[in-house]
Amino acid sequence: MPKLHWEDFETGTVGVYGPRLVTREEIVAFAAEFDPQPMHLDEAAASATLLGGLAASGWHSCCLLMRIIADGFINESHSMGAPGVDEVRWLKPLRPGTRVRVRATVLDKRASNSRPELGFVRGLFEMLDEQGEVLTTLESSLMVKRRPPEARP
Amino acid sequence: MPKLHWEDFETGTVGVYGPRLVTREEIVAFAAEFDPQPMHLDEAAASATLLGGLAASGWHSCCLLMRIIADGFINESHSMGAPGVDEVRWLKPLRPGTRVRVRATVLDKRASNSRPELGFVRGLFEMLDEQGEVLTTLESSLMVKRRPPEARP
Repeated sequence: MPKLHWEDFETGTVGVYGPRLVTREEIVAFAAEFDPQPMHLDEAAASATLLGGLAASGWHSCCLLMRIIADGFINESHSMGAPGVDEVRWLKPLRPGTRVRVRATVLDKRASNSRPELGFVRGLFEMLDEQGEVLTTLESSLMVKRRPPEARP
Repeated sequence: MPKLHWEDFETGTVGVYGPRLVTREEIVAFAAEFDPQPMHLDEAAASATLLGGLAASGWHSCCLLMRIIADGFINESHSMGAPGVDEVRWLKPLRPGTRVRVRATVLDKRASNSRPELGFVRGLFEMLDEQGEVLTTLESSLMVKRRPPEARP
């Protein structure tokens, strides 16, 4: 399969990627390394917090989402990275044993003014649980390589 | 030391936390787990990308920033987590061997309307290199427990 260029992304397109099972072990290991707060490390401590029980660090959710879309379509595309993230919302806790998917929606796209070799694809990325409940949302603009001028539609 | 409550945070306060040395090994290990794009995995492949050489995943920068502020002040506070992130900007590549710090600025604070036991502290978090160059910026509102009503100023 040839990799996707910026021209191949269409506003309104929706893809769903995954699933991936999120284990208690990886939740605790991630938290111990990057976000050592009691609500991500220990059941008893977590039950006394707003989360009401052990749940993944929000950053862990973001990283798992990234991995799922990397495998899902980014590594099948001429990705050139991203300048940042516009908004992340951690709506519901990600619990151990959840099998997550990511729904990716192309919100819009635009050619770069300063770099004619790339364009931006703004996406909404939603992490879903098995019931289709949205746990996390993330908006970001990806930079994707354009086709050579002579091969553009 | 007693832990900080929401009342103890003041708009305009600046703290600098770290340093932490970021190694090539951890950059590649993180990317292999969460963001397996060539620019984060392999020097030769990375040199042909916009980054111009191996650099950490932007998500890795966020996670390292989280760990530095967790050690720096969040775990000394009555932290109740965060509803999300307002904006992340990956301004400059984080290279192997960089010793990073995080500068945290309290942008503003407000009591919660719906939850009288907590307040929001909106912070700007900047990851700096040894020269003080800003590599990554992140804005987020932290939820912090309030003092009991009888102990409020």
